[in-house]
Amino acid sequence: MIKNIHAIQIILASSSPRRRELLTQLGLNFLVMPSNEEEHYQSDTPEEIVKELALLKASSVAKSFALPLSNTLIIGADTIVVLDGEVLGKPTDKQDAIAMLTKLQGRTHQVFTGVSLLMFEYNHQCKTNTFVACTKVFVNEMSLKEIQAYVESGEPMDKAGSYGIQGVFAKHIGRIEGDYSNVMGLPIATLYEILKKI
Amino acid sequence: MIKNIHAIQIILASSSPRRRELLTQLGLNFLVMPSNEEEHYQSDTPEEIVKELALLKASSVAKSFALPLSNTLIIGADTIVVLDGEVLGKPTDKQDAIAMLTKLQGRTHQVFTGVSLLMFEYNHQCKTNTFVACTKVFVNEMSLKEIQAYVESGEPMDKAGSYGIQGVFAKHIGRIEGDYSNVMGLPIATLYEILKKI
Repeated sequence: MIKNIHAIQIILASSSPRRRELLTQLGLNFLVMPSNEEEHYQSDTPEEIVKELALLKASSVAKSFALPLSNTLIIGADTIVVLDGEVLGKPTDKQDAIAMLTKLQGRTHQVFTGVSLLMFEYNHQCKTNTFVACTKVFVNEMSLKEIQAYVESGEPMDKAGSYGIQGVFAKHIGRIEGDYSNVMGLPIATLYEILKKI
Repeated sequence: MIKNIHAIQIILASSSPRRRELLTQLGLNFLVMPSNEEEHYQSDTPEEIVKELALLKASSVAKSFALPLSNTLIIGADTIVVLDGEVLGKPTDKQDAIAMLTKLQGRTHQVFTGVSLLMFEYNHQCKTNTFVACTKVFVNEMSLKEIQAYVESGEPMDKAGSYGIQGVFAKHIGRIEGDYSNVMGLPIATLYEILKKI
């Protein structure tokens, strides 16, 4: 049992600047150690896929340490966009980004983020807590010209579903249902409630 | 009829840094001229109140010009928080902010933003377009200690309902239904669709 979250070394197993920004909002100090694991999965459903990949990322960072860990929390996360059951990850190139945005415009899709918390206690025991959050997002109708202009900005390339909900794409987001930060890549309200209990 | 939005002088009749940030996301150049009008209203419903105040702010800035305006768009906006029919504006002091947040925590409330567009055409004719957006926001349960810590940060004092959805308060927002930017003070997706038609 750990009395104070600030006495724990926290490691964010992600290279996403959005996740870094969100975790900073919780007022925590943490290290960033992205996982280099290939993102292959066995699961079938969106919920299981993001949980599997979040756990994979956190575990891969844990394994990279030569010594057993203690008083350390590793946070892994994975985000996917789902439209009519089809999983949209990061685009492979500009054409792929244009194709994804053409599918998403004028429709509602779902964004799933899985978060995996690996809590290594003082005696090296590891407790795992993996959860998933889902937010519905409606993207307004977009012309091909608007889609092309957004893709040319370069912003879609490192993002699941080829868009970031913040910044210049915000003008195309008609409405959402659920946690906004989840769409950015980390559902911080749920994460905060869980960390309060640690 | 104006052919190009970039040929119009745009004036934002608001001192809110959040509105300035959101309007910048639309890629527009604009001047900031806050209205000094007292925010008194006659209307009864939340929708009518924010529309009345948005129009009041935009009109007050328009009247401050000595010469008739042309090719100029003035944007006024007003945001209120409504809980069980009670309108929550900006807090008067820290105690008031604590009282508001105590009411809001563990519940769903509504955020209304009215936007008033005064479009002065080349012949000085003015066309008015005033609309309103509503977003539901669920604030997770908060302890008095959490509320006090947030109020001590000073952030609530210039904000309707005593909170900003961005930044350190984001960890208390369980979910929203509607436009996120509307909660920040300016529903930019709707605004963007209207400006496209000008």
